[in-house]
Amino acid sequence: MTETSKAKVEVSRRALLGTTATTATIGGLAVAGGLGTAAGTMLAPQPAAAAGNKAAVMPGELDEYYGFWSGGQSGEVRIIGLPSMRELMRIPVFNRCSATGWGQTNESIQILTENMLPKEKAFLADKGGLHANGDTHHPHMSFTDGTYDGRYLFVNDKANTRVARIRCDVMKVDKVISIPNAADIHGLRPQKYPRTGYVFANGEHRVPLPNDGRDLDDPTKYHAVFSAIDGDTMKVAWQVMVDGNLDNVDADYQGLYAVASCYNGEEGVTLTEMTANEQDWAVIFDIKAIEAGVKAGDFKTFEGDVPVLDGRKGSKYTRYVPVSNSPHGVNSAPDGRHIMINGKLSPTVTVLDVTTFPALFADKIKPRDTVVAEPELGLGPLHTAFDGKGNCFTTLFLDSQVAKWNIDKAIRAFRGEKVDPILDKVDVQYQPGHNHTSMGETKNADGKWLISLNKFSKDRFINVGPLKPENEQLIDITGSKMKVVHDGPTFGEPHDCIIVHRSVVNPAKTWQRGDPYWAVCTAQAKKDGVDLDEAEHVIRDGNKVRVYMHSVAPSFSLEQFKVKQGDEVTVIVTNMDDLDDLTHGFTLANYGVCMEVAPLATASVTFTADLPGVHWFYCQWFCHALHMEMRGRMLVEKT
Amino acid sequence: MTETSKAKVEVSRRALLGTTATTATIGGLAVAGGLGTAAGTMLAPQPAAAAGNKAAVMPGELDEYYGFWSGGQSGEVRIIGLPSMRELMRIPVFNRCSATGWGQTNESIQILTENMLPKEKAFLADKGGLHANGDTHHPHMSFTDGTYDGRYLFVNDKANTRVARIRCDVMKVDKVISIPNAADIHGLRPQKYPRTGYVFANGEHRVPLPNDGRDLDDPTKYHAVFSAIDGDTMKVAWQVMVDGNLDNVDADYQGLYAVASCYNGEEGVTLTEMTANEQDWAVIFDIKAIEAGVKAGDFKTFEGDVPVLDGRKGSKYTRYVPVSNSPHGVNSAPDGRHIMINGKLSPTVTVLDVTTFPALFADKIKPRDTVVAEPELGLGPLHTAFDGKGNCFTTLFLDSQVAKWNIDKAIRAFRGEKVDPILDKVDVQYQPGHNHTSMGETKNADGKWLISLNKFSKDRFINVGPLKPENEQLIDITGSKMKVVHDGPTFGEPHDCIIVHRSVVNPAKTWQRGDPYWAVCTAQAKKDGVDLDEAEHVIRDGNKVRVYMHSVAPSFSLEQFKVKQGDEVTVIVTNMDDLDDLTHGFTLANYGVCMEVAPLATASVTFTADLPGVHWFYCQWFCHALHMEMRGRMLVEKT
Repeated sequence: MTETSKAKVEVSRRALLGTTATTATIGGLAVAGGLGTAAGTMLAPQPAAAAGNKAAVMPGELDEYYGFWSGGQSGEVRIIGLPSMRELMRIPVFNRCSATGWGQTNESIQILTENMLPKEKAFLADKGGLHANGDTHHPHMSFTDGTYDGRYLFVNDKANTRVARIRCDVMKVDKVISIPNAADIHGLRPQKYPRTGYVFANGEHRVPLPNDGRDLDDPTKYHAVFSAIDGDTMKVAWQVMVDGNLDNVDADYQGLYAVASCYNGEEGVTLTEMTANEQDWAVIFDIKAIEAGVKAGDFKTFEGDVPVLDGRKGSKYTRYVPVSNSPHGVNSAPDGRHIMINGKLSPTVTVLDVTTFPALFADKIKPRDTVVAEPELGLGPLHTAFDGKGNCFTTLFLDSQVAKWNIDKAIRAFRGEKVDPILDKVDVQYQPGHNHTSMGETKNADGKWLISLNKFSKDRFINVGPLKPENEQLIDITGSKMKVVHDGPTFGEPHDCIIVHRSVVNPAKTWQRGDPYWAVCTAQAKKDGVDLDEAEHVIRDGNKVRVYMHSVAPSFSLEQFKVKQGDEVTVIVTNMDDLDDLTHGFTLANYGVCMEVAPLATASVTFTADLPGVHWFYCQWFCHALHMEMRGRMLVEKT
Repeated sequence: MTETSKAKVEVSRRALLGTTATTATIGGLAVAGGLGTAAGTMLAPQPAAAAGNKAAVMPGELDEYYGFWSGGQSGEVRIIGLPSMRELMRIPVFNRCSATGWGQTNESIQILTENMLPKEKAFLADKGGLHANGDTHHPHMSFTDGTYDGRYLFVNDKANTRVARIRCDVMKVDKVISIPNAADIHGLRPQKYPRTGYVFANGEHRVPLPNDGRDLDDPTKYHAVFSAIDGDTMKVAWQVMVDGNLDNVDADYQGLYAVASCYNGEEGVTLTEMTANEQDWAVIFDIKAIEAGVKAGDFKTFEGDVPVLDGRKGSKYTRYVPVSNSPHGVNSAPDGRHIMINGKLSPTVTVLDVTTFPALFADKIKPRDTVVAEPELGLGPLHTAFDGKGNCFTTLFLDSQVAKWNIDKAIRAFRGEKVDPILDKVDVQYQPGHNHTSMGETKNADGKWLISLNKFSKDRFINVGPLKPENEQLIDITGSKMKVVHDGPTFGEPHDCIIVHRSVVNPAKTWQRGDPYWAVCTAQAKKDGVDLDEAEHVIRDGNKVRVYMHSVAPSFSLEQFKVKQGDEVTVIVTNMDDLDDLTHGFTLANYGVCMEVAPLATASVTFTADLPGVHWFYCQWFCHALHMEMRGRMLVEKT
């Protein structure tokens, strides 16, 4: 049995890279070492015994860390337990969720629509009023004093230019905002100090401003726009127009600057144009100067009355630090001093020293004087994570490796000392993008775990057809050598994640009855003279019918209600079971209606009773031995 | 660190059951032993060492089994690797999928709509034309000669009365059908012999026939309808009207009979009415007799011209075997002879012997003469799985246990012999519903693994808020004692699963260019004189614009295209990268357009270009070091 159940995988890393090479030379690109000639040292697969089993969390044990994972094109955010790498929950954000009714309940529709742009609302009017998709990239938690504070998660939607906020007490989205003026939000990071504060969000693609059709095929009129969102009010505080395409971003630990990578300094619109030059840049934003500029009225407004400052080259609000062509990840080190700009097409990571930034903005030094190290790590450096002990872990996309290196040694080498900053390399399977260490983007980085989010899984799992999962590998970084201890398949392209110690996160076990999440229901119930907690009422108001019920396993307080064909029916369900984990649901069969009602929550849905006849509603979250009998009838009279 | 990271969970099983008991007595129900007085023997948590680590699949190793998992209210099907219990893929079925574009691509919309009922189409006309949700319950593979054949998976949607088929070569849905006359498909199982053949599907809820509003609040006119779907054509072959509510179903190993459990023999519509009587029944369907009846024209038609036979009590097509009130799971043993009816409210499992069925239909014996055993196993028996060695594993919902018992011993005990059929019991956490063994519903049941799908996870994982995951536990059944070796959190309520040896499943690594999945695109391209494989064409046809492109990493063959505001645009993308795992995507930003294009696939999407301006499309499935540069512009001229 062992032979068949634990068949060793032939690690065909050379084969993968070899074939990728065929396509990688498109456009005649040449980067250091050659895109297609990555030194594919053939390594034997790690024997199970050697890999150890530190990731195992046995039945009856709990994970130590919450992982918050972008769900990529799935549009959701996931909660993963670490080190077990088990998916503990899916939080619908920009997607529609069949299970919870996200995109269908009145509460979720309100959140998804109340901060849309006017043009977006008009566009969606004949399309059901909602986007059906999202492309989440960067989930990050709110900070206080340089570390996570457990209040909120923020995440961007590249597909439809949005940013959402998740309440960490109930792990549900409470705000979704569309960002005006910008196109296609990519990089996102919260302010670390003194608190969040701002959430910085990069509009990646360059478009005309305003983008209403008056300018079309004139790229000189295209701009990329950087946004600072107020994390408390979820309104855009200000925006800055920059040169190039905005990619990733991070904030410092002092609350003074944000740094974004920019590619396509050429400002081209084709692949050949975008990669023509030797150099692009990192752009540094001076937050205090920008705030003063806003106060002084040094801005224009376009969509949505948001102040847009001009931060293009020569502006007092920004500085442009030249780095090699097409930099990618931006990562602030927990030492509070260094910010890494990852080379992507260059084999280097450029290390900026934030203590030099005031002198740069005072024009006392040149942009490149902010660079204190630039170690050459390997091919395709995309993102860097930290252990809090002065070491860095950089993903090498083309080499399919993670390089561990030391900041201090890199600085000494940059000064000319003969020292190798690289401490270790480990193969990952295959093509890593983002990575993250436990608490690694905070001052409390603890150096225990590293996740490498790999874009290809190929032969690492039994084949599931032409579409494969990604492979997110868990790496033990407590020793001097990195050890891959778990392969984690994931759907879509999670893109990025954070790893938060469980002591920081304290979700509620049930909802509180007075929660503002269903404030609209509470107000309407009051008008209707209904107590939601004991509701069993059908209120007719012209052709509008409000059906109030509460649920206690295994029954709804109403076992039937009658409406007329064509009535606009709102069903409001309150779950009065106050037991941990005793979620109910409300599914109205053949009406496409389905919603989650967690313990002590209220949820509502509105639909038109177009279909005459007998229609059963039922609880779809198993609640009791008589769960299947927890149901009732909607009788729709033909008119 | 070990102390904090591996904190032992206080197993509060007694507490859970104690509190459940409070709500369990609603309706004044009394079942054997009392619903709320489950003997909550307090067991210590399993120490990690004792549990062993047989579920570990280390980096570089492959799983031995494919698990096909219902996604419950999420509307999807999941592929899980066993024994690692990792989610390898999500297959969108009845849900909308942001990542793959399921429910948005022309190919998926065709599949989701082409077999809708006329009334359903009319109902959805002003709601975007599609249901937004589904409630998948029972995923089962097609059989040949009593075992899985790797061709198809079938799965039901209880929420909107549908059955879908998944092609196992590409792991995508190719057919979705709406079932006429029936309401809310619950139990589903394929014919095991000689092949699938029929897929049997239970319309659970009783509704008027036809359910168009002419009869509303007269339950005497309500019926439950059993369907046999042709698994090759995915058309409903015939239906049988029965007494009671249809619950679960299974087929025999001879191709002669199907057996369904029925509850609510009272035919009530409230909880009190539905549980009033002492007994309900299992109904046996005589397939050959029904086929002869169809041939002889002994049926009526209602919706959809499907023959509906009358199988109510007294019919020649059915027999009703009395069992205790509200039976639930129906499971055919791999011995080809015994079928288990699980008691739910009774502590027993009723064992039917299929060799007695001909005599029953010939009225030579009485219905209860088909019962050869009825072991008392514990409180809340819901489903039974098999090891192929004559032993059974039955989930006990109220006891939160799995009972292992022996068929032969149960038969001997039923005959009066003093023998205890129960071999072992193991605690599960908590409240198990379905269970399944490796290959357990086939003649090749191999007795290696058992999954217990538990409805409550409560304190088994770090808390993720008011909504918790389920807990699906992996149990090693190779020894005489069962051993829980893994806790698997899952989203929604997966409800049911199957475990298939990997030798049976052989998915393709890439699509084949001639696949019928995109036949409509192929035909249209031919008319337009376009070769999909080399497409880079924009065809205008009045206000309809067809944009054909192909992709090779890192570029689309078109870097821009121009349309007019209000044009109906169809984008057809062909992925010409033939590398395993090199999936591309097509996302059109701010247009809510997003689709997967796996290696050598073609996918298409149609939308109206309502929003003027510059809109970037990009590849959202990481494909290359220059993936972010894989994009282009749609220029929409204002009109």
